[in-house]
Amino acid sequence: MSDGPPASALAPALLERLRALLGGRLSTSEADRAHHGHDESWHPARPPDAVARVASTEEVQAVVRACAAHRVPVIPFGVGTSLEGHVGAVRGGVCIDLSGMNRIIAVRPQDLDATVEAGVTRKQLNADLRDLGLFFAVDPGADATLGGMAATRASGTNAVRYGTMRETVVSLGVVLADGSFIRTASRARKSSAGYDLTRLFVGSEGTLGVITDVTVRLFGIPEAVLGAVCPFPSIAQAVATVIEAIQSGLPMARIELMDSNTVRAVNAFSKLAYAETPTLFLEFHGSPAGVEEQARNFAAIADSHGAQAMQWSRDQAERSRLWQARHNVHYAFLAQRPGAKVWPTDVCVPISALAECLAATEKDMAETGFYSALVGHVGDGNFHWGFLVRPEDAAEVAAAERLNERLVMRAIRLGGTCTGEHGVGHGKRKFMPPEHGEALSVMRTIKAALDPHGIMNPGKVLPDAEPGAEPGAEPGADPRPAR
Amino acid sequence: MSDGPPASALAPALLERLRALLGGRLSTSEADRAHHGHDESWHPARPPDAVARVASTEEVQAVVRACAAHRVPVIPFGVGTSLEGHVGAVRGGVCIDLSGMNRIIAVRPQDLDATVEAGVTRKQLNADLRDLGLFFAVDPGADATLGGMAATRASGTNAVRYGTMRETVVSLGVVLADGSFIRTASRARKSSAGYDLTRLFVGSEGTLGVITDVTVRLFGIPEAVLGAVCPFPSIAQAVATVIEAIQSGLPMARIELMDSNTVRAVNAFSKLAYAETPTLFLEFHGSPAGVEEQARNFAAIADSHGAQAMQWSRDQAERSRLWQARHNVHYAFLAQRPGAKVWPTDVCVPISALAECLAATEKDMAETGFYSALVGHVGDGNFHWGFLVRPEDAAEVAAAERLNERLVMRAIRLGGTCTGEHGVGHGKRKFMPPEHGEALSVMRTIKAALDPHGIMNPGKVLPDAEPGAEPGAEPGADPRPAR
Repeated sequence: MSDGPPASALAPALLERLRALLGGRLSTSEADRAHHGHDESWHPARPPDAVARVASTEEVQAVVRACAAHRVPVIPFGVGTSLEGHVGAVRGGVCIDLSGMNRIIAVRPQDLDATVEAGVTRKQLNADLRDLGLFFAVDPGADATLGGMAATRASGTNAVRYGTMRETVVSLGVVLADGSFIRTASRARKSSAGYDLTRLFVGSEGTLGVITDVTVRLFGIPEAVLGAVCPFPSIAQAVATVIEAIQSGLPMARIELMDSNTVRAVNAFSKLAYAETPTLFLEFHGSPAGVEEQARNFAAIADSHGAQAMQWSRDQAERSRLWQARHNVHYAFLAQRPGAKVWPTDVCVPISALAECLAATEKDMAETGFYSALVGHVGDGNFHWGFLVRPEDAAEVAAAERLNERLVMRAIRLGGTCTGEHGVGHGKRKFMPPEHGEALSVMRTIKAALDPHGIMNPGKVLPDAEPGAEPGAEPGADPRPAR
Repeated sequence: MSDGPPASALAPALLERLRALLGGRLSTSEADRAHHGHDESWHPARPPDAVARVASTEEVQAVVRACAAHRVPVIPFGVGTSLEGHVGAVRGGVCIDLSGMNRIIAVRPQDLDATVEAGVTRKQLNADLRDLGLFFAVDPGADATLGGMAATRASGTNAVRYGTMRETVVSLGVVLADGSFIRTASRARKSSAGYDLTRLFVGSEGTLGVITDVTVRLFGIPEAVLGAVCPFPSIAQAVATVIEAIQSGLPMARIELMDSNTVRAVNAFSKLAYAETPTLFLEFHGSPAGVEEQARNFAAIADSHGAQAMQWSRDQAERSRLWQARHNVHYAFLAQRPGAKVWPTDVCVPISALAECLAATEKDMAETGFYSALVGHVGDGNFHWGFLVRPEDAAEVAAAERLNERLVMRAIRLGGTCTGEHGVGHGKRKFMPPEHGEALSVMRTIKAALDPHGIMNPGKVLPDAEPGAEPGAEPGADPRPAR
């Protein structure tokens, strides 16, 4: 894997065409290129050859057409909060920066939906919605753009109740590899009219097209919200509580697990004083009577699994502090080891396998000796175990790679997936064959059909065809469980 | 459009290969062929050349491989309850009858999911689940197979609360056009690992592959269920109630609209005595206190829109009678005009457009003079206005066709879809261009890539390329609203 070619790699005719189109919004400065070549993870920067700051769908179409004519890659970019090297220009090319496309096109309270340009961030949308009593529920922590969240099929703390981007996106505007524009679906709440193009582009990470607008479902801000912090003596007891609560049908809006290392980092970073023990952070949404009933039922389950003193929070400011602290986990980790970067693992398993997966990983982690910390959207069976690595220490990166590989292969063996919400990007392509087997050939067929020249964010999602290069790729060894 | 070719159209070598494979489970009898050539709608029968009663995924693979070698179409068949000519062998070929593949492979209460063979029906699965306190929520009325429901992206009365097959299917086993087998996803509750093949095959109506097993989400049977029947002076008042209830976030499990004709047909067929006026049938699920709270909130909204005396039903046997009567609407219609068949329209619009769409259609229907009756899953903006036609009366069929076309184009103009849940089949292909525009080319590209010889249920979903043959296809006239 070599660095991307220098800016001069772009044909002068292409640069000229893009400059004529965008003027000063086409940049080849080193600073701009460097900024657009990396995300928030440990992945090394891969600067693009140029950055195109687009202002409209028509401009995206024009940029893609120009790049297609020159067979030059295009890499969509929102605000760069992804975590698996999604935005790196691993084969050079033009970064399409959509952050300037940040208009809220329509909010329709009657239909509980909104249409926004791809560069609108979730906080921007929620600020706009607040006075209407509505909110956009998907919350990955980072203030990502909705285009980026659709592209990576993001989710987060609320997904257990309100769904992920898969369930939340109603329709997309997409520029295809030839520069043509499609709308993936009508705004009808449901439809059986042909192939589900919306869901095909959600999670496609820019490899099939560039998302330029997003229509999403909205929800009413709940009448009552009740927060809770519930410490446990062990991770196993916390997980047993989660499983029983999910099975009993409790409609929890959030149920997040942190291990003691995470609580310690959060306390230090956000100046809080939670007991430094495995802890569930919860939120209940509903009517005033409803949330009290949910909370009582949850507390009974938690007690039966050895929960320690629960703290309840009916005050909004207090709850905001709690969730802001949870959202700052990434930065709290970083503060624990200056100079290090976070390797944020992200697997998701059937909830029946969660305790086993966590226990085996905890043991592995302890033996390896990394500073690591756990946060989990455990109601979905999804968790992140971040480890702090110094990217310049090759041995450390290699050890993290092996640890991550053992964790991912364990999750796949247990019937799970290599990524619950971060996406495949550049970093997890090697896990696609063990996870998907033959189905990967269908993905390759679709990619080849919709992007025949391979210009759409190349080097992401699909592994290069390198037989034998996959982890655990022994002949005849299928790590997936019989289903 | 001519009838399919006779059985002798299949090459003797192919028939021999299929007989060697299936023995007596390969049939070319006229009765078998006739039975497998039609669904429950007005669409004329199009018998296949042979019927292959398969017993395993491996047999499906072998049948598809044999047919692929001879470039002969394969048409998947469950129990034939579809409504848009999905199972007609419009280009001849071999019907793959999956109804014998009816094993429940696994039920996993901890994970709230189950895996079944494609031929398992929803009532069969629910009977199996009852003792576990779980249920499969998608309920289209007919006792369809789960394979068929996945293939048509079915939904029904519960979708407003529990989702459609789009949200319910976790993973599929699929035999592709070359006979290879894929699993579309792991059982993880969420994943960002590549293209969403599950959602691609859900709703693909056998045109991309044959679904052989289905993994679905399950829900706990609610602790308390409360039914209600709520009559209104007008459809408009009923719809205004629905819109306000949805907007206020009331988590209704079912909210179904019937017009006075439908209530009359239901009363006659099921020996009931509901007031013959526009009526909402409702169901609330939750805790005992929760359903009472929902019911109070709903009643307040309904009262403000002129609801007449509401009837509440806490008794399960009574509720079962109510919903059985609702599910028998199709047969209640048929009984109103012996010899006629039902033309079951099926559009879905953004809920803000529902009142306008219903009012315009009601007027059109009255002017046309058809015997028609309305049932609507109005919480989703989805409704059916069935008209009774005699298929042998060409003028009547043509008039129905025009009425249907006006309704569908109205729904598309209002931002909706030509089908909310029945699917495209053979009958609605002509509405795909006005609904999808350029996006249809992406569907065609995917179809060509995954089924290069066009053997997978040909003549369904995608229209034949006949320029100018689409309704409303005036140059430059895009019926879709600006979004």
